[in-house]
Amino acid sequence: MSNEKSVQLVAVGSIGIDTIETPVARRESILGGSASYACAAASFFTRVGMVGVVGTDFPKQHVDLYKHFRINLDGLETVPGETFRWTGVYEANMDNRRTICTDLNVFASFLPKLPLSYRKSPFLFLANIQPCLQLHVLGQIEKPRFVVVDTMDLWINTAKEVLLQVIQRVDMLTLNESEARHLSGEQTLLKAARVLLGLGPKYVLIKKGEHGSILFSPDGVFLMPAYPLEDVQDPTGAGDTFAGGLMGSLASGGKVSEIAIRKAMIYGSIVASFGVEAFSLDRLHTLTLDEIEARVGRFRDMMKVR
Amino acid sequence: MSNEKSVQLVAVGSIGIDTIETPVARRESILGGSASYACAAASFFTRVGMVGVVGTDFPKQHVDLYKHFRINLDGLETVPGETFRWTGVYEANMDNRRTICTDLNVFASFLPKLPLSYRKSPFLFLANIQPCLQLHVLGQIEKPRFVVVDTMDLWINTAKEVLLQVIQRVDMLTLNESEARHLSGEQTLLKAARVLLGLGPKYVLIKKGEHGSILFSPDGVFLMPAYPLEDVQDPTGAGDTFAGGLMGSLASGGKVSEIAIRKAMIYGSIVASFGVEAFSLDRLHTLTLDEIEARVGRFRDMMKVR
Repeated sequence: MSNEKSVQLVAVGSIGIDTIETPVARRESILGGSASYACAAASFFTRVGMVGVVGTDFPKQHVDLYKHFRINLDGLETVPGETFRWTGVYEANMDNRRTICTDLNVFASFLPKLPLSYRKSPFLFLANIQPCLQLHVLGQIEKPRFVVVDTMDLWINTAKEVLLQVIQRVDMLTLNESEARHLSGEQTLLKAARVLLGLGPKYVLIKKGEHGSILFSPDGVFLMPAYPLEDVQDPTGAGDTFAGGLMGSLASGGKVSEIAIRKAMIYGSIVASFGVEAFSLDRLHTLTLDEIEARVGRFRDMMKVR
Repeated sequence: MSNEKSVQLVAVGSIGIDTIETPVARRESILGGSASYACAAASFFTRVGMVGVVGTDFPKQHVDLYKHFRINLDGLETVPGETFRWTGVYEANMDNRRTICTDLNVFASFLPKLPLSYRKSPFLFLANIQPCLQLHVLGQIEKPRFVVVDTMDLWINTAKEVLLQVIQRVDMLTLNESEARHLSGEQTLLKAARVLLGLGPKYVLIKKGEHGSILFSPDGVFLMPAYPLEDVQDPTGAGDTFAGGLMGSLASGGKVSEIAIRKAMIYGSIVASFGVEAFSLDRLHTLTLDEIEARVGRFRDMMKVR
């Protein structure tokens, strides 16, 4: 475990109020956003600092929940106006989701500022936000040990040039299967990953949802399945929870190597497997490190060949 | 390796002449059928006997190819008429295929007969054919050590009652993801597998194509990813190649245990990964055990956590 006083990981992303409908249920005005999921997941392993913005309407109970996770909130800005809102509906198989409504609100004019106390953080996770904001954050952090960037189709379509600048400057790019194909122009993930590694990062992590994820590096490939779940309530934020857990776990060890990343992927994946069992941060709220370790143990048994 | 003289594994299935179009190429009148793929794959590991039927038009070169694989052909019947023919087209992502045309021909009146030399075979693979034919074969084999059955949506829809009788009498049921959901009526694979295990078999193996496969037993779950491929030419027969390689590998060891099945799944999966690199049995034709072992080694490295 890292020094409790200083932030070991900074996560920059969105903070939102979501309305979500899955085949299982519908929830209105619940806490969401990539920064919320990533920081909550990371908090099980390390001291994480959150960079994001909310409006004056942001409920105190959500701030209290962040505090419950002992997330450092020096980088959480509150500005006049309303908090970012998103409404989405999932199809029967939970694979596809439709965005019904996005109200950027205070997020529209967000310019992330790193507090002084975050600038020496060894680990940085740039969750899925506009590439120019990600670039702006990269300009404020001092010699980080390991930086991961996430992105999405929207930015590949509308801000590819800036996105490529960001990708060139980070250690790991994470994105989902279809985005990897889209950004690389290649069909098979092996070829896609080769193209993406060519853009600069040392690692490319392709997320496949319920089918797991694949880590590519110049030297190797790590094929990680997903922990099989009885019931999925809400897959929202699973990718951010995975990345946040991964980065938190990696930061807690301090060292970065391919084997350390593989191990951290297991932890990230397991935290995400808990996360999707309920809406919002409801399951992470009650989750313990013992529960994580127990499921990691079962997960490892499920991957064992001998 | 098993005794060269006696058949250690019997595979019953279709033998066909296929016309296949994938996004990569189109091939007319090539050798196909579940028995062809399964026996060729198994032949790398054990002495396999084929049970199937062809017409008098069946080209001698295909029989020669079976002999090249040293497949025992005592169970291969040639009857007056034309060989089974199938024409299929794959979509861009190779996930979905459409059947353009099926001519059952001599396969329509096929009644599989096990030669005396096959009846004491310890391993039996019932590839995807009509459940009543699978049941007929089960009536002819004497105390097999391990029987696996494969099936498809068509039989779940049209012959469910007989299919359930077959499933009750085998050791392992293998089917793909959507078939598992369909037959069980459950959405998550964990719940689906529990229902399917309740039908009688000790193991349920759910195939997920390029996403790997999952072995379920009352005691455990084995999550196996798929070996990542540069190029896929033709996925036809991949499931049969996987099952055939698995059964061949298992038969060569002789013992059946969950750990032995996990290991055999690796071998089956790797043989299938070679198989889809070319149409028909073209890649398996030139494949060597050394190549298989080398790729198995790389595959294991890709699954290693520590």
